Amino acid sequence: MNTPESRTQARPADAPQYVVGIDFGTLSGRAVVVRVADGAELGTGVFDYPHAVLTGHLPDSAVPLGVDWALQVPNDYRLVLQNAVPAAIAAAGIDPADVIGVGTDFTACTMVPTLADGTPLNELAGFADRPHAYVKLWRHHAAQPQADRINRLAAERGETWLPRYGGLISSEWEFAKGLQLLEEDPEAYEVMDHWVEAADWIVWQLTGQYVRNACTAGYKGILQNGQYPSADFLAALNPNFAGFVIDKVQHRIGRLGEPAGRLSAEAAAWTGLPEGIAVAVGNVDAHVTAPAARAVAPGQMTAIMGTSTCHVMNGRELCEVPGMCGAVDGGILDGLWGYEAGQSGVGDIFGWFVAQGVPPKYHDDAAARGVGVHEHLTELAARQEIGQHGLIALDWHSGNRSVLVDHELSGVVVGQTLATKPEDIYRALLEATAFGTRTIIRSFNDSGVPVTDFVVAGGLPKNRLLMQIYADVINLPLRTIGSSQAPALGSAIHAAVAAGAYSDVQVASDAMGAAPADVYLPIPANVAAYNELFAEYTTLHDYFGRGANPVMHRLKAIARRATGAAAERRVPHPAGVSA
Amino acid sequence: MNTPESRTQARPADAPQYVVGIDFGTLSGRAVVVRVADGAELGTGVFDYPHAVLTGHLPDSAVPLGVDWALQVPNDYRLVLQNAVPAAIAAAGIDPADVIGVGTDFTACTMVPTLADGTPLNELAGFADRPHAYVKLWRHHAAQPQADRINRLAAERGETWLPRYGGLISSEWEFAKGLQLLEEDPEAYEVMDHWVEAADWIVWQLTGQYVRNACTAGYKGILQNGQYPSADFLAALNPNFAGFVIDKVQHRIGRLGEPAGRLSAEAAAWTGLPEGIAVAVGNVDAHVTAPAARAVAPGQMTAIMGTSTCHVMNGRELCEVPGMCGAVDGGILDGLWGYEAGQSGVGDIFGWFVAQGVPPKYHDDAAARGVGVHEHLTELAARQEIGQHGLIALDWHSGNRSVLVDHELSGVVVGQTLATKPEDIYRALLEATAFGTRTIIRSFNDSGVPVTDFVVAGGLPKNRLLMQIYADVINLPLRTIGSSQAPALGSAIHAAVAAGAYSDVQVASDAMGAAPADVYLPIPANVAAYNELFAEYTTLHDYFGRGANPVMHRLKAIARRATGAAAERRVPHPAGVSA
Repeated sequence: MNTPESRTQARPADAPQYVVGIDFGTLSGRAVVVRVADGAELGTGVFDYPHAVLTGHLPDSAVPLGVDWALQVPNDYRLVLQNAVPAAIAAAGIDPADVIGVGTDFTACTMVPTLADGTPLNELAGFADRPHAYVKLWRHHAAQPQADRINRLAAERGETWLPRYGGLISSEWEFAKGLQLLEEDPEAYEVMDHWVEAADWIVWQLTGQYVRNACTAGYKGILQNGQYPSADFLAALNPNFAGFVIDKVQHRIGRLGEPAGRLSAEAAAWTGLPEGIAVAVGNVDAHVTAPAARAVAPGQMTAIMGTSTCHVMNGRELCEVPGMCGAVDGGILDGLWGYEAGQSGVGDIFGWFVAQGVPPKYHDDAAARGVGVHEHLTELAARQEIGQHGLIALDWHSGNRSVLVDHELSGVVVGQTLATKPEDIYRALLEATAFGTRTIIRSFNDSGVPVTDFVVAGGLPKNRLLMQIYADVINLPLRTIGSSQAPALGSAIHAAVAAGAYSDVQVASDAMGAAPADVYLPIPANVAAYNELFAEYTTLHDYFGRGANPVMHRLKAIARRATGAAAERRVPHPAGVSA
Repeated sequence: MNTPESRTQARPADAPQYVVGIDFGTLSGRAVVVRVADGAELGTGVFDYPHAVLTGHLPDSAVPLGVDWALQVPNDYRLVLQNAVPAAIAAAGIDPADVIGVGTDFTACTMVPTLADGTPLNELAGFADRPHAYVKLWRHHAAQPQADRINRLAAERGETWLPRYGGLISSEWEFAKGLQLLEEDPEAYEVMDHWVEAADWIVWQLTGQYVRNACTAGYKGILQNGQYPSADFLAALNPNFAGFVIDKVQHRIGRLGEPAGRLSAEAAAWTGLPEGIAVAVGNVDAHVTAPAARAVAPGQMTAIMGTSTCHVMNGRELCEVPGMCGAVDGGILDGLWGYEAGQSGVGDIFGWFVAQGVPPKYHDDAAARGVGVHEHLTELAARQEIGQHGLIALDWHSGNRSVLVDHELSGVVVGQTLATKPEDIYRALLEATAFGTRTIIRSFNDSGVPVTDFVVAGGLPKNRLLMQIYADVINLPLRTIGSSQAPALGSAIHAAVAAGAYSDVQVASDAMGAAPADVYLPIPANVAAYNELFAEYTTLHDYFGRGANPVMHRLKAIARRATGAAAERRVPHPAGVSA
């Protein structure tokens, strides 16, 4: 036992029980101590990854990384266990002996290449300077050529799993990233024994057991009806890839809420938690948020709104929804079909506009009022009638993840005049993301998976104008959730189930999930006004997004060519010749 | 004689001769003293109109003006004669006795309602508080409903003059403004003896003679083949409008370059110029610029580029060019057909973007470098390869004056990503206006009026990147002209012809026109790159502009309705209900 003082004291039989949820984000890990009885969040610890995201070069090395690469260092995740968890326990002021379980969630699809014992390849002698030995973060987008080949071949062969992913496999997922690894560093591929989701790798570090969670195996690993893509398919991509599933990927699947194993002595030493407590099967940040938001019933869509938005929802049956990210049996809650969709740019778009498109006076006025520029623009925009700005925008500045599933799309603003002001464009961008959400909901509704309730988590719910716009645009009651650390709470709920404190995640969610913060009801006049604007959005969405005018694809191709032409530059400056 | 000292001195027979050109702009008048022999500009005087443009209310009055109204006070123009002309003479340091003629140009269509003796109605007792007694400035747009009725009726009746104006009569012109006056203030209409172009009213003030110039009579007064719209047509618009042409408009026409009369004693006293010298027939700022730019030969298009752009060009024959502003016999140069086209927003769009869309860092960096924000953005944009920004914009922020002739159109930007920077959008807007110019040139070329040469005057030629973009986009050599006061120089050229110093305007233009400042030659690789982007522009131009998706019209209608709904406001703020 690593906390001998506490273990040796006498403890009352009715002492409260706690769980620890740990949320591994893109830049940091956050541990939260949660009371099992009611979900109260008692203490938090946060630890920033020392290496953050590697995009330019490897650590302590001149080895450069290519465009669209994004790597991480796996030991940074271990440091979260060693730092954030003890900090959370200390902040909560509880006896660690009263912690009965640990749950984790992770970004996905984030992949670790390991040996048979879980050692990441970058920790092997002689591998520190090989980019492919490191973790490929979810937003590593350099495997797009491989993804394109996977999609082309799967469509040609009519692979039955393809429609489960809205017809497109992402460059972010296990197969595209794995094929890139094979083709660009065959030696590392050969040495690699397992191609492991970071969500599962961290559980392996905690328990010494490798278990693949049903969520990422389904959403990111193309596991459908117990089967992965066939060796035949893989061989057609690349003969050396034929054994990818059997040699590198397939492994025992753990259902969400099950224990993956018990906390090892080593991990108990790192965390200060009791050895032997339950560790839940790994999970994904967005997906654990649904139980944290008490939104796991079929029809309850949870939107995690931040820089981007991820939508998760359970359904009783499997339906194929065009353009969604995936439908996975037990992907969110064991026993139900979990659906996932997303918008690649939401808060990112608002942030881009504030950084790149707002003149000094607005910054000065905001500072004089002691508010941020976002708040200032929001207040100005809130004074407008719907449609008064005369604008329609498309929210594709970061591509389109769901419905169209096309990362070559880009943003549009229609309707500017010489009287257009920054708050007009800001409001049009807020509205565009709401129209994007409505387009996703419509796709679900039209495919037999009706959305009846909309629950919002993440960082954006604090913008009340934005929430009212969403309620009015989607014409559904909208509820925000109180917890600012919903994923960690969701992981804690899974920990409680894994520890046996609740019979299943749904029951635990009812007891421990966060209370609603606010409810926004659609205002009928606003709903009518937005119906009119949504029709305009849809016309433009289809025109630019469904092939009538693929100008955005061509502009990106031209831009890439022009950027590449820097070497053999045309005369770049105006060449006026005095006559 | 009003300058007795100089008149009584002995003057050598070979004393140099001078003319004075006076350019009446939107906010000020500018007089320039020009040497007849070679066009040298020797002295300038500028006088700002004390009342500038009336948009909110009448002077010294609480009488409010409606949306889109824009009035002026005619006496402000007389003050230019009394102030700017003596200042120019003084600055030139010449003997006013050596001035042999005066020429003027004016904004158009700017209309003055007068009595039979030229007295403006607003100067009558009891009329100072009647908005319709004042000058309707060119950009008074409140007669749009009347213009719409004129266009509808003319199209229904197949009026033969309609195609001469690209199929649409503007709300800015004589008939729409006159019909508004009749219908909104019939008493003032009844009292009015003449509905006079300001271009002719100022000549009337100088000479005591009312002569209608061929340019505005044709372009703005719908005079074609010696005939105005018929009384029958006018009666169908409004029975009380039947006599509009006969009672209020028609009058002797003066050809451009002719003397309208001689400088009156009163005007000689105002200006300090010799009584009895020639005063040229009135003219329009854009149209006098062509001779100032030595660009009066058929095929030479002169673009006056400022907040908006006006294109003028002569042709030997009458062709109907779809969507141009007008074709008028002798409208620019007596004996040729004068064509006019325009872009409603050019520098205005760049200015709007700099004011409303550029973040503080760019303002700070520009200030630190001691340059303006326009210059700073231009330098950043000049470093890019063509197409590198990945954007296409439509330049309709102020509507479309030529080709589409639709002021309900609005601006578009397609292709933004989270990496898009202000200089990217700035460059895309520069390019959009160049594509707009190419669209106009293509319409001329396709209609049998080929454009072979492109000459630029106005304020924008100082942006060398912009000029090179235009040369590359239109694939024509582009020449800028040296004079920063080209309209006044053009008026002086007309004065010299009216005074008999040259046989006609073409000859005077050759002798007195401004030398080219710079020549920009198209760069073949750039031409090819822009051909590709222009194809994208054209697709979007036709999609948004030719009826496939009239979303811009609908957005404007929605915006007007929403603005009007301010009285019966919907709940304007988000209504979050704590649950």
